[in-house]
Amino acid sequence: MKGEWYDIFVNQYDKNSPVSYANGTTLAFELMLNHPDKAKRIYLSPSLKRDETYKKLVNLANSKHIVIIENNEKIFKSPWAKDSTFVISEFEKFETKLPSNGNHVVLVNPSNMGNVGTIMRSCLALGIDGLALIKPCADPFDPKTIRASMGAIFALPIETFSSFEEYQKANLNRAFYPFMLKAETMLGAQKITTPFALIFGNEATGLNDNFLSLGTPIKIKQSPKADSLNLDNAAAIGIYDFLNH
Amino acid sequence: MKGEWYDIFVNQYDKNSPVSYANGTTLAFELMLNHPDKAKRIYLSPSLKRDETYKKLVNLANSKHIVIIENNEKIFKSPWAKDSTFVISEFEKFETKLPSNGNHVVLVNPSNMGNVGTIMRSCLALGIDGLALIKPCADPFDPKTIRASMGAIFALPIETFSSFEEYQKANLNRAFYPFMLKAETMLGAQKITTPFALIFGNEATGLNDNFLSLGTPIKIKQSPKADSLNLDNAAAIGIYDFLNH
Repeated sequence: MKGEWYDIFVNQYDKNSPVSYANGTTLAFELMLNHPDKAKRIYLSPSLKRDETYKKLVNLANSKHIVIIENNEKIFKSPWAKDSTFVISEFEKFETKLPSNGNHVVLVNPSNMGNVGTIMRSCLALGIDGLALIKPCADPFDPKTIRASMGAIFALPIETFSSFEEYQKANLNRAFYPFMLKAETMLGAQKITTPFALIFGNEATGLNDNFLSLGTPIKIKQSPKADSLNLDNAAAIGIYDFLNH
Repeated sequence: MKGEWYDIFVNQYDKNSPVSYANGTTLAFELMLNHPDKAKRIYLSPSLKRDETYKKLVNLANSKHIVIIENNEKIFKSPWAKDSTFVISEFEKFETKLPSNGNHVVLVNPSNMGNVGTIMRSCLALGIDGLALIKPCADPFDPKTIRASMGAIFALPIETFSSFEEYQKANLNRAFYPFMLKAETMLGAQKITTPFALIFGNEATGLNDNFLSLGTPIKIKQSPKADSLNLDNAAAIGIYDFLNH
């Protein structure tokens, strides 16, 4: 496959490009099972073991009519490619609508791709039904975010909004719980109304004071000795408590 | 300060070196307040604003007789230096003993420095009294780990052990709660005995089956649709539940 026309395009990830890339076998399966129409090509490295998993991967791609490209080594040297990755999936970016009756997590202006990906993973693992991202925010389709999501980006509904107001207008009938250090209700003491939206602010600045008058602001009990929790840990704790109260 | 003898040594971080480096103003304060005897030098960038925080930093260093080095630009170009950092602290690595009556988190063979640092931060923020690291494990003193800890490494007792057995021998009188996907007791349903040790395994492999017969193994409720939780998120949820039951 060397010298094909697309060889010169594949190495860079571009935020504005309609395609992105997912590293690893698990993510290739998740992509093909959840969004087969968005999967463009599955690249297999010469170093990939031709074992049972390989056969399953190829069979799944064949059954979904997805192109497989073997032995194109160049793409595995892309700056966003993980060192130990032998499978790379190229796919078209997509939007999914949030389920109107489900419980949401809303991230307002998250800036770190690792955090956004890890929160996708926690939402899916713990049982949240959809994730809203309020712009400006870390690119959900950057290969780094996708990697941190461990494939959750393909299974969890994720919708991007240009402002919190836009999210709110589209999702009126729900209880809002902004997580804020200035809140009065401690996590664990809240009354839970469903469907709900758990709202978290930016890593450095949190949510602004306007959110103090929205729904029931919630505070996670924390030691005064420490800096606040990392965003993805605060979100994991909040989600866990709301779903296992 | 250009041309000083130490200019040629400062740029690399070496796992086996007796010194390490912390990025940022907050960490410089945490270091000088908690371990002034371990602080060797505080480097200030020419780009650091000479404001009230600067004055406090210099006054604290002076009162503790800690060397301040201004305008050594080279160290701010070290591979481990954060782009926007204007303060770097050089310190001697140290060990702290775990408090025998306190509640511990035990990480068995964690491999990711970001996870170890973030878990230090969560332990301190949520109220855990000490963190045990079982070797082989990610270097707790790597500048990446320190950065992720947001200074918690200077305030939280952290002790390293060469095996889990060594930790156990030194910390007999406590209840052990290994977190395992194969456990039968769901988090939230456990009886809590203090002091306790919450035990978490490696990111990829978890804890081995021997831990099923130690204390009360605990499982976090998770959707079958998802890969398991990220280590630092599982730890945050476990710690939160045990301390806010």
